[in-house]
Amino acid sequence: MSEQRIAIIGAGPSGIAALRAFESAQRAGAEIPEIVCFEKQADWGGQWNYDWRSGIDEYGEPVHSSMYRNLWSNGPKEALEFAEYTFDEHFGRPISSYPPREVLWDYIDGRVRRTDVRDRVRFSTAVRWVQYDPERDAFTVTVEDLRSRETSSSVFDQVIVATGHFSYPNVPGFRGIETFPGTLHHAHDFRGAEKLAGQRVLLIGASYSAEDIGVQAFKMGAASVTMSYRSRPQGYDWPEGMEELPGIERFEGQRVHFVDGEVREVDAVILCTGYLHKYPFLPSELALSGPNTIYPDGLYRGVAWQGNPKLHYLGAQDQWFTFNMFDAQAWYVRDLVLGRAELPPAEERAAHMARWRERFEAVDSDADAVRFQADYIRDLIEATDYPMFDLDEVVRIFLDWKRDKKENILTYRDRPHRSVMTGTMAAVHHTPWLQELDDSLERYLSTPEPTGMEDLLAAREAAPSA
Amino acid sequence: MSEQRIAIIGAGPSGIAALRAFESAQRAGAEIPEIVCFEKQADWGGQWNYDWRSGIDEYGEPVHSSMYRNLWSNGPKEALEFAEYTFDEHFGRPISSYPPREVLWDYIDGRVRRTDVRDRVRFSTAVRWVQYDPERDAFTVTVEDLRSRETSSSVFDQVIVATGHFSYPNVPGFRGIETFPGTLHHAHDFRGAEKLAGQRVLLIGASYSAEDIGVQAFKMGAASVTMSYRSRPQGYDWPEGMEELPGIERFEGQRVHFVDGEVREVDAVILCTGYLHKYPFLPSELALSGPNTIYPDGLYRGVAWQGNPKLHYLGAQDQWFTFNMFDAQAWYVRDLVLGRAELPPAEERAAHMARWRERFEAVDSDADAVRFQADYIRDLIEATDYPMFDLDEVVRIFLDWKRDKKENILTYRDRPHRSVMTGTMAAVHHTPWLQELDDSLERYLSTPEPTGMEDLLAAREAAPSA
Repeated sequence: MSEQRIAIIGAGPSGIAALRAFESAQRAGAEIPEIVCFEKQADWGGQWNYDWRSGIDEYGEPVHSSMYRNLWSNGPKEALEFAEYTFDEHFGRPISSYPPREVLWDYIDGRVRRTDVRDRVRFSTAVRWVQYDPERDAFTVTVEDLRSRETSSSVFDQVIVATGHFSYPNVPGFRGIETFPGTLHHAHDFRGAEKLAGQRVLLIGASYSAEDIGVQAFKMGAASVTMSYRSRPQGYDWPEGMEELPGIERFEGQRVHFVDGEVREVDAVILCTGYLHKYPFLPSELALSGPNTIYPDGLYRGVAWQGNPKLHYLGAQDQWFTFNMFDAQAWYVRDLVLGRAELPPAEERAAHMARWRERFEAVDSDADAVRFQADYIRDLIEATDYPMFDLDEVVRIFLDWKRDKKENILTYRDRPHRSVMTGTMAAVHHTPWLQELDDSLERYLSTPEPTGMEDLLAAREAAPSA
Repeated sequence: MSEQRIAIIGAGPSGIAALRAFESAQRAGAEIPEIVCFEKQADWGGQWNYDWRSGIDEYGEPVHSSMYRNLWSNGPKEALEFAEYTFDEHFGRPISSYPPREVLWDYIDGRVRRTDVRDRVRFSTAVRWVQYDPERDAFTVTVEDLRSRETSSSVFDQVIVATGHFSYPNVPGFRGIETFPGTLHHAHDFRGAEKLAGQRVLLIGASYSAEDIGVQAFKMGAASVTMSYRSRPQGYDWPEGMEELPGIERFEGQRVHFVDGEVREVDAVILCTGYLHKYPFLPSELALSGPNTIYPDGLYRGVAWQGNPKLHYLGAQDQWFTFNMFDAQAWYVRDLVLGRAELPPAEERAAHMARWRERFEAVDSDADAVRFQADYIRDLIEATDYPMFDLDEVVRIFLDWKRDKKENILTYRDRPHRSVMTGTMAAVHHTPWLQELDDSLERYLSTPEPTGMEDLLAAREAAPSA
């Protein structure tokens, strides 16, 4: 075992989960392979590592993170909590259910901060090309140290791709968009809503980016927020000043024509049109391609590349569950690598995938999809020593969350949920999200004079998980 | 010869020059190697191929072009004219000296439009990795067809890198810049100045980007334009509303502190901080690195990579001369490939570079630098059958241009220059640049009712080359 070499590509939540999985086995006395993790950014955390730059980073690489200053978790932290490192353990006291970006980064970082796994990460190092050599049954990984600009190649027995799929924006064209003279970019390049104050904003899309950038723009005083959907509206009970319209027929300078004949004049356009699966360092026979789905084709148990099961993907699914799902995947991939879990032959893997695929085809609601993903995670955890947790209860938290959003898209983040890991009820935050203009960790963890506490307590009481 | 295979990477002005050079030899009866040109964009023209997208393109690749809608040539067209395809030949009548983007693209395209060289270009194809194999003395070039997402590799005897070096922005950090809440991006992502109307704009930089985006912002009604220089100011006679300040000490939200103690509150920041030499598809031993200079180290006659002279660069220099310099380089590289020009041994090449380097070290003014580049081009043309032209006269045009800018940075584009290729005096354009808000080819080539003709005629008379 110990002579094996494993490359992990990316040190975001998935890559860190892989590092942690191996470290956890090592702590328990196992011998582990040599691990090298290549991370393009100067620090770990992936999406959660905020970069003020957009487009291209300081080394000329595409900026990885789609994070904006104002981002607060848009799902309850109780649904993403690590089973083996809880929020209570990290913060030492209850915090609210929807923390801002910096707080979540701190939590991810905190799990591995005091270990030596950081030594296994080569930061500011971009993977340029991965070549599989069937004769050696090994991968040559060619990387560039972005600081020294030196390229080098080395050989690995297995490769874990943990680069995520919310980094390369999908930027479709629209008739006449080249004539639009205002602010125009993809959600990937959005860094903060303050500059949208007083502006008439158009968001193209009807998923999480449009929803959250929409309410951020509203919060920061946009003159109006119009959201354009292709297939169906988000359907929230939008406040005055926010609206949904169908698809775009064409742009004519600042005037936008919608397919239903409506026309709006706008100052800023943000394309909330999703992301591409893109692995520019992989030959096409090793590269997962879209679409973004809960059960991607070609990945046995959602991780092992059927065409070459020494190549693994983490977090390649569309995601209800996130951090704890990445953990379950990482623990299972670790066990495959360590030989603790057995990889069945190709036909058995194919049959396994076909069974899950069939079940996935029958999913016909969001609730079903969450349950499907919970079952998927349960199956992985049962095969490993990752701590099992009450996945059915997490499903209920997701459904509560969806109901809270439906009730009020501007206040759902004020609701507390209960941890399935510790049983701890989340704190009611000192300031309602809509009133909080300071997104810093310092402000979040501070204990200012109470403001609007009555509303918050009322929200707490209304929350069914309370 | 004919069994050789040559890869050209990039189909911008330099790549097209290479295609044209080979085609020109073929038209004259020569046998030429198999040529494959890989172009990431869907069309050719490089920088001149405008993309409304910024940051990342429709296939998830870094957007190549730094072009903006409002761009008009910032140097006289008489300094970049092809010696073997003149503006007169293309347009059939005199046009002005500073045409807008679309007109220049049309000129570049026009030279090769009616040839079959387009068949040699694989569009929407990104080069992923180039590997030199010393045993075969050949290069394996791995590419991805971005439409099909298929990767493939093939072997080439020589490689011509023509990807340019104004595509990967240099994005330095500034203290506190992450707190700036307004519009913030690099000049590479600038697409038009209309949205800067009424805004207080800060441009960081003191070279062509700052100068031109500055006057564009002024033209489009920016409330103020502040330009920050690190070493020395541009020093033009700025109109009311434009100013130059020294370096930036720190950002504090919208407030910008300059090293001289001045403070400005701004709404938009554009980093005009230059570009990186970046060749992410090349191993470091083949990759040219910065800085941006008239005479880069390691390139024999500015084109042949000293470490491996079967690898060539076109347009890798800092540029006074552009299109016609790329032609001279392309013709010379073609002749090296065809064996018409002899590549001296490594020591002789090194001695040649040392002599030119020594001369370059003595350059101590812009005028000197232009003359140096003119001599460099003359040396190349003398070694090929590219039509020689009056390089000394082009140097004078450059000096006139610099003087015109010094006189009035807002009106220099209204001045006409005389072609050294045809002797034709440029037309005086129907509308002064500062008044022209339509940058289209159609408008440019139209003959509207004369406006402001008196001023223009006066400008023409004042122009010494008239």
